Amino acid sequence: MPPQKNLEIRLRCWITLEGEKFFGPGRMQLLLGIQQEGSISKAAKTMGMSYKKAWDMINDLNARGQQPYVILKKGGEMGGGAELTPHALQVIELFKNLNAQLKNVAEAEENLLDLL
Amino acid sequence: MPPQKNLEIRLRCWITLEGEKFFGPGRMQLLLGIQQEGSISKAAKTMGMSYKKAWDMINDLNARGQQPYVILKKGGEMGGGAELTPHALQVIELFKNLNAQLKNVAEAEENLLDLL
Repeated sequence: MPPQKNLEIRLRCWITLEGEKFFGPGRMQLLLGIQQEGSISKAAKTMGMSYKKAWDMINDLNARGQQPYVILKKGGEMGGGAELTPHALQVIELFKNLNAQLKNVAEAEENLLDLL
Repeated sequence: MPPQKNLEIRLRCWITLEGEKFFGPGRMQLLLGIQQEGSISKAAKTMGMSYKKAWDMINDLNARGQQPYVILKKGGEMGGGAELTPHALQVIELFKNLNAQLKNVAEAEENLLDLL
């Protein structure tokens, strides 16, 4: 029997610290936006997110992470922009890798979809 | 460096049909409740879910699935209870297996947590 049209396995993976969200696709997207835009406010804008919400996310990563994730350049965010630390880049790589592996498992199990 | 306390990788996996949720942990839990209770209303109650919401979920599975998932026994839900079809049991097994495999990948990647 051919698979039904438009059946898809969807995945979401995130990391909690003390039971609260610490890292996930939203924060990763924000970090990638900061890397691209060099600014928290510009990155937030491209995501349709308030500056306050973006800053709260970055502040939480910086405060609860083992090392800072984002550093404000001279003049602070409004004056000098922001950049990712090597630590943030490493976490992004590992999280992307985890998601790619999960996606591989899901794709290998797509035969499940023929049944549903 | 020892891993931080209480960091956890969390996963959620669900299946969409035509872009809308079709199967996931909530519907699986409802089906398992029906298997245990022999009744949609009792299963809904144990999940703190309204009967209407439970019935909408079951109706959607039955209507959009390739085969029915739940069959009402003589007298209908209120009179005779409900039971799972072999099809539903097979989907549950495959979905459990998919989730177990995803969990294995996540556990193998827990070294990510040492870094965060």
